[in-house]
Amino acid sequence: MDEVKQQIITLLKDNIRKIPDFPKPGIQFKDITPLLQNADTLELTSRVLARPFWRKDIDFVIGLESRGFLFGTQLAENLHAGFVPIRKPGKLPAETISVTYQLEYGEDQLEIHKDAFSDGARILIHDDLIATGGSAKAATQLVEELGGKVVGYSFIIELAALEGLKKLNNDAQTEVLLSLD
Amino acid sequence: MDEVKQQIITLLKDNIRKIPDFPKPGIQFKDITPLLQNADTLELTSRVLARPFWRKDIDFVIGLESRGFLFGTQLAENLHAGFVPIRKPGKLPAETISVTYQLEYGEDQLEIHKDAFSDGARILIHDDLIATGGSAKAATQLVEELGGKVVGYSFIIELAALEGLKKLNNDAQTEVLLSLD
Repeated sequence: MDEVKQQIITLLKDNIRKIPDFPKPGIQFKDITPLLQNADTLELTSRVLARPFWRKDIDFVIGLESRGFLFGTQLAENLHAGFVPIRKPGKLPAETISVTYQLEYGEDQLEIHKDAFSDGARILIHDDLIATGGSAKAATQLVEELGGKVVGYSFIIELAALEGLKKLNNDAQTEVLLSLD
Repeated sequence: MDEVKQQIITLLKDNIRKIPDFPKPGIQFKDITPLLQNADTLELTSRVLARPFWRKDIDFVIGLESRGFLFGTQLAENLHAGFVPIRKPGKLPAETISVTYQLEYGEDQLEIHKDAFSDGARILIHDDLIATGGSAKAATQLVEELGGKVVGYSFIIELAALEGLKKLNNDAQTEVLLSLD
């Protein structure tokens, strides 16, 4: 990685706030609101996220509710792609398909509009953070069930110790801005 | 309004999908996902939303969870402003202030980070839709409690019959892309 790129990554890293014991004791939450608050880091983050996927013919960026909406639409605009939300149950108003996936305790569900894209569409899945990878994997299943091809994954932050990236499609291009503990 | 502007508005209007009886019987939901799905309407919407606020010295765009996140960050980027989320209770990890407001049945709550911006900041509040105006008014209260000045409101859709705009600050610039029944 060249020196300027490295400096940009350091700058962005300095704008991730670490909040102890949120949402529960023992968890250190990675807060991206400082990145959003500053006009320069907001713009820089959206550009740096998009760059690796230029000329990759992305048809749609999919953002996961709700922090994946924040940079997801900018990522789509920067790639001149459409944007498709994946949401929690009961939020999408038209006909949906859904998938259930396991959490540490219990399970969760995600939905996508049935008519979100046409067969063979090239999809980039985006979220702010990948932890165990459960929701990104669930999103992959939804995309494939609709006949789309997941060609990329884009995350601002990876929690490296949880090895979530291992759950994702091997043949997709996976980009992580910041790898944290 | 000139003819091209009128044609753009018509084009955007044609990409709002009306879903009957969602989320409950008798309500016709205005679905913006078609606007997001198409790369051209996605880009066009974000530009048209930003245009009236160019040279208005907006420091921060505030987006309301969660559909206000979709175009809110792009609006901020287009105005070279920061972005600040207003969220439902328990979602923001750092210290917050909150406001409770009335719904048709019951009440709801919104929160903002206490350190979201500094005293005197010029704020643009954005959401996808204004109905009765309860949440936009609550957002206004949060901004003012932190010492910010609401200088503008930006909505994609106004449900004109509900007269929500009347609840907003008179001296702010209010922009609505599409006025629907």
